[in-house]
This record gives sequence, C-alpha cells and structure tokens, in this order.
Amino acid sequence: MTRRLQILRRAAEVFERKGVAQTSIEDIASEVGIKREGIYYYFKSREDILLELILPQSDNLLRSMRNIMATASTNLDKLRSAMEMHISSYSPGYLETTVMLREKHIFKDQKKLDALRRVWRDYTDLWEELIKRGQTSGEFSDGLDAKMVSYGVLGMCNWMARWYTPDKGMEIPEITENFFRLCSYGLMRGEPDV
Amino acid sequence: MTRRLQILRRAAEVFERKGVAQTSIEDIASEVGIKREGIYYYFKSREDILLELILPQSDNLLRSMRNIMATASTNLDKLRSAMEMHISSYSPGYLETTVMLREKHIFKDQKKLDALRRVWRDYTDLWEELIKRGQTSGEFSDGLDAKMVSYGVLGMCNWMARWYTPDKGMEIPEITENFFRLCSYGLMRGEPDV
Repeated sequence: MTRRLQILRRAAEVFERKGVAQTSIEDIASEVGIKREGIYYYFKSREDILLELILPQSDNLLRSMRNIMATASTNLDKLRSAMEMHISSYSPGYLETTVMLREKHIFKDQKKLDALRRVWRDYTDLWEELIKRGQTSGEFSDGLDAKMVSYGVLGMCNWMARWYTPDKGMEIPEITENFFRLCSYGLMRGEPDV
Repeated sequence: MTRRLQILRRAAEVFERKGVAQTSIEDIASEVGIKREGIYYYFKSREDILLELILPQSDNLLRSMRNIMATASTNLDKLRSAMEMHISSYSPGYLETTVMLREKHIFKDQKKLDALRRVWRDYTDLWEELIKRGQTSGEFSDGLDAKMVSYGVLGMCNWMARWYTPDKGMEIPEITENFFRLCSYGLMRGEPDV
C-alpha cells in the first residue's frame, strides 16, 4: 500500500469513527503514524482527502448504473441489479460510503462540491429513468411517481449507513433480496407468483 | 414565545443551516440577538439544547406509534397511519427532525444518548411488531423479514431529511401516498385491486 493510499484508508476510518467535522489533519496523521507535514505533502486539506474518497466512488456508482441501463434485461431485472450494485457498495468500500452519506456541510470549495453534485444528480436521474422505462413498457405500475419511487428505493438503501454493520446481523445479499422484494412485489404479496 | 422557546427554535434553524458540529453557542446567541451568557442562563451546553429539541419529538413519535398500534384497524391501515404520522413529522417540526437525523457523533453525555437510543429502539421495535402482526394475520406476505421491512420503510422516510424541502417539489401527502403504495402493493402492481 502506498503512503498516499494509506492516508486515504486511515482518514476514512477516522472520519467514520469521529465524524468529518471532528477530525483534524493531526488526527489523521497520528492514525497513519506520521507528522502532519507528511499529510500535507500529499493533500492540501481535510476536504481534499474527503473528496478524493468520495468522488471516485461516486463515479463508479454512476458508471455501474450506466452499464446496467445498457443491458438487454427486463426493467425488473435492471432494478434488482441496480439495487445489488448500490447496496454492495456498502460492503468493501463501506467506510467511505457512510462518511460520504452522513456529511453535508463540509465542503467550502463550491466547485468541487458542484462536481460531486453533478455526479449524484446524473446517478439519481438514471434511477428515475429506469422506473419510467418500466412504466412505459408496462412492467411497472404507472400509478406511482417515478421520481418518488427512485428517492424511496435509494433512501431505503442509503439509510443502511445508519444501521448496517458488516459481519453483524443480516448480510448484504439477504438485505438486498428483502429490499428488492419489498419495492417490487410489495408487502401485500411479497414475492412473484411462480 | 418565551425566551427559552425562542432559543430552541433559533438553535434548530442554525443547526439545520450549518450543521451541529459547526454551530457554536455564540452562533445561537447572535441568531437570537442576545449575549452568550443569555443562552447559558437556560442551557448548560449546545448538546443540552440539541437534546431538548430531539427527545420530546422522539417521545411524541413513540407515543403516536403506540396509539396507532392500539387501534382496531387492519394492519395495512395501521401501516398507512404510521407512515403518515412519521412522514408528517417532517412538516411542522421538520427543522428539528432533520437535525436529529443527520448528526450522530455529537453526544458526549452517554446517559442522555442512551435515553434517546432507548426511545428510538422502542419505536423501531413497534414498527417491526406491526409488520409481524400483519404477517401472522395473513395480511402481509411472510416471505419478507419483518425487521428488514421496518428498516426499509423507515429508511425510505428518514432519507427525506436529505432531499425534502417544504413548499418545493412534491408535498407531504403525495410523498406519503407514493411511499405507502410502493411498500404495500409494490412497483409491479402499484395499487390495490379494486
């Protein structure tokens, strides 16, 4: 592991444990076991570190979602794949993701924040597009608002940042299956008629 | 409005705007238009103010949920009422709720935090109980895990803290209706067969 990567990984851990606002460059340096100057050699600020954690992961989500949208499968299968993809981003990169989702007020650099917002907007738009396509094709009920559905599904998944702990309680595949069934077939039916 | 209540209301606004971690007693005092000593006359710390915003609201949620559980209606109707109750807590008390939901690392007072956690645990348990009752009575599909369903439904609603803005976009009753249909009848059917 390079020093740079080591800083990023340790920073993600401290951010997760203490919250970004309560984490100083000193905290990160002491976690890595170096002096604060050693951090500044690689990063300009705490925000820089945070953004370097968040942006690539957000780009990955967006790219994965584009790939899913481009497949030839049904919209229901796309929904399942998208939920799997989104939720499983909690597993290996879970520290970065929870940090990303919990903090809101920390970017003073408006340009960088705008870049991040653009990725998230494009990502959310793709989810809405998926629901709309399913409604147009007749797979999904058109009695529901596509934007609200996508906010609901993403919210359900994102809220995991508040309760999910790896290796404790339910595992990612079971959570995904439960959430997918809840959204697709609903509590009143729960599973497809087979 | 009493001075005490005025402090609480202004504090909630600053917390929401700046984030709790970035808000000082001075910020709150200047928002109220008094000196910081004026705050300390009523509250010991920023945490004290925050807890006084969060605890009564959490108690209210719990009490409302108990009332809903005690009604004679079907479990599906109870689910609708519970979602309405939970989501509508965003409307008048929305500032306090979003503050409450966004912050995690700010309580150093373990006893107070435990009290709050107890209320939230009891509240979440009641949601799980509602799903289980519906499964036992045969109203809800038993193919779904009751805890995951309650986490999913609450997550969907709680995530509103990140995107909902009063008087902008969709209104509370429409959001509630969309989320209720999504959870109960699902995307594949979307509404009851009538």
